[in-house]
Amino acid sequence: MTQQLPVAVLGANGRMGAEAVKAVEAAPDMKLVAALGRGDSLDSLVDAGARYVVDLTVPESTEENVRFAVENGMHAVVGTTGWDLGRLESLETLLAGHPEVGVLIAPNFALGSVLTSAFAAKASKYFESVEIIELHHPDKVDAPSGTAVRTAQLVAAEREAAGVGPSPDATTTELAGARGCEVDGVRVHSVRLRGLVAHQEVLLGGPGEQLTLRHDSFDRASFMPGVLLGVRNVAAHPGLTVGLDGYLDLGL
Amino acid sequence: MTQQLPVAVLGANGRMGAEAVKAVEAAPDMKLVAALGRGDSLDSLVDAGARYVVDLTVPESTEENVRFAVENGMHAVVGTTGWDLGRLESLETLLAGHPEVGVLIAPNFALGSVLTSAFAAKASKYFESVEIIELHHPDKVDAPSGTAVRTAQLVAAEREAAGVGPSPDATTTELAGARGCEVDGVRVHSVRLRGLVAHQEVLLGGPGEQLTLRHDSFDRASFMPGVLLGVRNVAAHPGLTVGLDGYLDLGL
Amino acid sequence: MTQQLPVAVLGANGRMGAEAVKAVEAAPDMKLVAALGRGDSLDSLVDAGARYVVDLTVPESTEENVRFAVENGMHAVVGTTGWDLGRLESLETLLAGHPEVGVLIAPNFALGSVLTSAFAAKASKYFESVEIIELHHPDKVDAPSGTAVRTAQLVAAEREAAGVGPSPDATTTELAGARGCEVDGVRVHSVRLRGLVAHQEVLLGGPGEQLTLRHDSFDRASFMPGVLLGVRNVAAHPGLTVGLDGYLDLGL
Amino acid sequence: MTQQLPVAVLGANGRMGAEAVKAVEAAPDMKLVAALGRGDSLDSLVDAGARYVVDLTVPESTEENVRFAVENGMHAVVGTTGWDLGRLESLETLLAGHPEVGVLIAPNFALGSVLTSAFAAKASKYFESVEIIELHHPDKVDAPSGTAVRTAQLVAAEREAAGVGPSPDATTTELAGARGCEVDGVRVHSVRLRGLVAHQEVLLGGPGEQLTLRHDSFDRASFMPGVLLGVRNVAAHPGLTVGLDGYLDLGL
Repeated sequence: MTQQLPVAVLGANGRMGAEAVKAVEAAPDMKLVAALGRGDSLDSLVDAGARYVVDLTVPESTEENVRFAVENGMHAVVGTTGWDLGRLESLETLLAGHPEVGVLIAPNFALGSVLTSAFAAKASKYFESVEIIELHHPDKVDAPSGTAVRTAQLVAAEREAAGVGPSPDATTTELAGARGCEVDGVRVHSVRLRGLVAHQEVLLGGPGEQLTLRHDSFDRASFMPGVLLGVRNVAAHPGLTVGLDGYLDLGL
Repeated sequence: MTQQLPVAVLGANGRMGAEAVKAVEAAPDMKLVAALGRGDSLDSLVDAGARYVVDLTVPESTEENVRFAVENGMHAVVGTTGWDLGRLESLETLLAGHPEVGVLIAPNFALGSVLTSAFAAKASKYFESVEIIELHHPDKVDAPSGTAVRTAQLVAAEREAAGVGPSPDATTTELAGARGCEVDGVRVHSVRLRGLVAHQEVLLGGPGEQLTLRHDSFDRASFMPGVLLGVRNVAAHPGLTVGLDGYLDLGL
Repeated sequence: MTQQLPVAVLGANGRMGAEAVKAVEAAPDMKLVAALGRGDSLDSLVDAGARYVVDLTVPESTEENVRFAVENGMHAVVGTTGWDLGRLESLETLLAGHPEVGVLIAPNFALGSVLTSAFAAKASKYFESVEIIELHHPDKVDAPSGTAVRTAQLVAAEREAAGVGPSPDATTTELAGARGCEVDGVRVHSVRLRGLVAHQEVLLGGPGEQLTLRHDSFDRASFMPGVLLGVRNVAAHPGLTVGLDGYLDLGL
Repeated sequence: MTQQLPVAVLGANGRMGAEAVKAVEAAPDMKLVAALGRGDSLDSLVDAGARYVVDLTVPESTEENVRFAVENGMHAVVGTTGWDLGRLESLETLLAGHPEVGVLIAPNFALGSVLTSAFAAKASKYFESVEIIELHHPDKVDAPSGTAVRTAQLVAAEREAAGVGPSPDATTTELAGARGCEVDGVRVHSVRLRGLVAHQEVLLGGPGEQLTLRHDSFDRASFMPGVLLGVRNVAAHPGLTVGLDGYLDLGL
C-alpha cells in the first residue's frame, strides 16, 4: 500500500483552515498529523512527523511558519496573503540552502478560477474584443475584485506581446461608468447582487462569434481540491512556485 | 375562408421595411397591397385598398403618414422614432374624431425584449438586488442602450411604488466606472464586443437565489413577429397605444 | 408602532424549520412565539398566542397540524409535501366553516423559481420554440426535477390554450436521449454536476431572437423570503390557496 | 513594405467561398489573385501566381484541387469535408515528395469553437463532473452535433489518460432521455430552438465551483479569422496538419 502523506494544517481554527482539516482527513492518500491554531507551538510539527504544511493563517505569522517548515525540511502550501516582494526574495534565499524543499504560494486555490484566467489570457490574442464581468455578494468593499484585476493584467500582457490592438469601441456618448473601468486597457465591470458568492466571466468576441469563460465559486469548499493538488505536487516542484497554474498540466 | 388583412408597408426600401414586406407576404392571414418608398404618393394607399399601414420610415415623414392613415380610416402600426409629446398629443386629438381607428407606436417590436422589460419590472420588487447588463456590437455610439435605460426606469418605478429600497452595495474602494452607471438608482453596465448584435440581461438577487432574464436579438428578423402581432391586434385597440406590451396578454 | 405578527414554527428542528426560525426572528414585523419539534403538543400554540403557523414538518403530521390551526382560528403557511386531492378537499370543507382563516400550501417558496415558471408560461405562447434545462447536484435521484416538470406542464397548457403548435424539430438522426425527455410535448434536459445546487433555465426562441429565464437556488435560505411573504399575506387571502404565485402581484 | 500573400479561393461561388473572397480582399497582408467556381480550370491558378489555395468546394472535387496545389508548390488551407483516412494517407504520400509545402485540413475554422474543445479537454481532468450542452436552430437533422461529439471524445480521452472516473450520477428514476445521450461516457444534451445558429456549452463542476466554457457562432463570418490564420501560418507548417488547433499557440 502507498504510504499516506503526513500533513499539518496551520490556522486550523479559521474558516479556511477548518475546511482544509476536513479535506485532508477525507483524502485517502493523506494523513492529518497536526492541526495548529493561534498560539500553538511550531515545534509540535516536528514531533508529529509532518512532511507537508498547509498554511492558512494570517499575514502576521505566515512568514515565520513557512521559514520554520523549510528549515525543518517540510514542504509548504500557502494560501495566506501578505507575501510582498521582500518576503518572497528572503524566502528564495532560504530555499537555496534547502534545495529539496518545495513551497507553493497561491493567491487563489479554486481550480476553475485559475483555469479561467489562464484560458482567457491564451485565447485573448485570437479575438478582436475582450471584456470582463465579475459578480459578487453586495458586502464586498472593493471593485473590481482582485481576481478580475489579475485576469485583466494577464490578458493585456498576452495581447500586447502578440501585437493585438485594443478592443474596438465606438462609444461617443456615455453615461459615466456605463463602460466599466479600465485595467491595462481591458474593460472590467463589477456587479454586486444579494445571493451571489464569487463569479467571473470573460467575454471574447470576433466576427460572428463569441467565446465565454465563466467561473462560479459557490462556497469555500471550492478551494480544497486545489489545496490537495498542491500538497500532492509540491515535493516534485522544489524551490518557490507562485500561483497554482504552475502545477497544472495545461500544455495544449 | 377568413379574409386576409390588406396591409401596406411604408418605408419599404429601408432595411426594416424590406423585412416587413417579406414578413407580410409570408403571413397567411395578410395580403400585401402596397409597398411605398420615399417619394411615393400616399394616395395610392386608398386605391390599393389598404386597411392597415405599417410605418417604418423616418422621423421627418412618419407624422404625415400616420395622419393620412387615420384620416382615411386605416389602422397604423408604427416603428419609426421621433414621436415626441407634442406629436403624440396632436395625434390623440385626431384620433378622437376617428374613434374606430387604432394606432400602435412602439419603440421596440422584439417580443423578447418587451417581455424582458415587463418581467423585470414585475419581479424586481421581490428581490433585494437588481442590476442590468446590456451587450452590443462595438460600433454602437451610445452607452447604455436606450432599451436598458427604459428597463432601468421601469424597474426603479416599480420598486419605488412597492417601497423597496436601493440594492445593497458595500463598495468603498472603486476603480472609476467598475460599478457601472446609475439610471434612477439602478446600476447598468454596457459591454461592447465584436460579434454581438443586441443583448440585455437583468440580474435579480435575494438571499440564496438569483433570477436572470436575458434577451438576445440576433438580427432584425426578430422585430417581425411583433410587427405582425401589432397588425393583427390594432383594430381591436382603437385610439393610441404606446408600447407593444399594451397588446400582450401578460395577466399572471 | 405597528404590532408584530405572532408566528409559530412547526418542525423547528428540521433543516427548513431551523431556517424559518431564524428568518422569523430576524423579521422586524414578526415575533416568534413558539418553535415546536417532533412530539411537542399543539396545545402550546394556543397558550403562546400564535396567530400564524408555519408548517415545515413531515407528510405524516402536516394535515393534523393545519387542521388544528384552522380550528383555532390561526392562519397557516405550509411547505410540507404530501397534500393529495383528498386532503385538500377535506381541508376546504373545514375552511368553509372558518371563513376568516387563510391557508397557503406551496410546493416551492423560492420567489425566483415561482416567477420563472409563471413568466415562462406567459411568454411561451409568443415564441415558436421552448425547451427547459434543469441542473442539479449529482446526488439527486430523479430526473427531471419536479419543478421542471411543473414548468413544462404550465408552458404546455398555455401554448395549447393559445393554439400554438409544438416547437419545430427537424431531427431525423438522434443518439438516444440527445434531445432530452418530453413532458406534455415540451423537451426537458437534466444536467447533474458536482458543485451545483438547484437551477432551472427556460429557453424561448423565435426568428432572430432568444429569451432566457434562469433561476439559481444556491441554498435553502432562498425559501425564506417566500415564507415571510406568505405569512404577511395569508390573512388577506381567506380560504385555501395552492401555490405562492397566488399571492404575487404579477398583473402586467 | 511587406509583400502580400497571393491567395486563390476555390469554391468562390458557394456561401463559404464567397465569405472567404471578401475576407481575403479585406486582409491587408493578402492579395486575391484568383476566385474559381465550378468548372473553372485549375491551370489558371498557376497563371495567376497563386501561392496559397483556400479550398471551400465539395467532397467530390477537394482531393483533386489539393493534389493540384501541392504538385504546383502551393500551400493549401482546406475547409471542405470528405477527407477519409484513405485520402489523407494518399495526400501524405504526395506531400513527402514536396517537403516544403504545407496543407491544413480543418473540420472547423471557428477559433472560439476550436478553443472551447481544447480548453474543455485540458480542464476536464481537474473536475469531478463534466457535461455538454449544444444548441442549434431547429432545422438541423442530427443530434448531437458533430462538434459536440468531438468535444466529448476529447474530454473522455483526457480524463481516461489522467485516471479520472466517470462523472457522479445518482439518478435512479429517469423519464427516458432526461439525462441526455452518452458519448464515450460523457453526457451530451441537444437543444433545438428557432432563432439560434450554433452554440456549445461545456459545464465542469467540482466541490463548490463550476467552470463554464461557451461558444456562440452567430454567422458564417465566424469562420474567416480562422481561415486567414491558416493562410498566414500554413507555409511555416510543411506537411499535413489536421485541425486548426495545431496552429494555435496554446502552451500555457
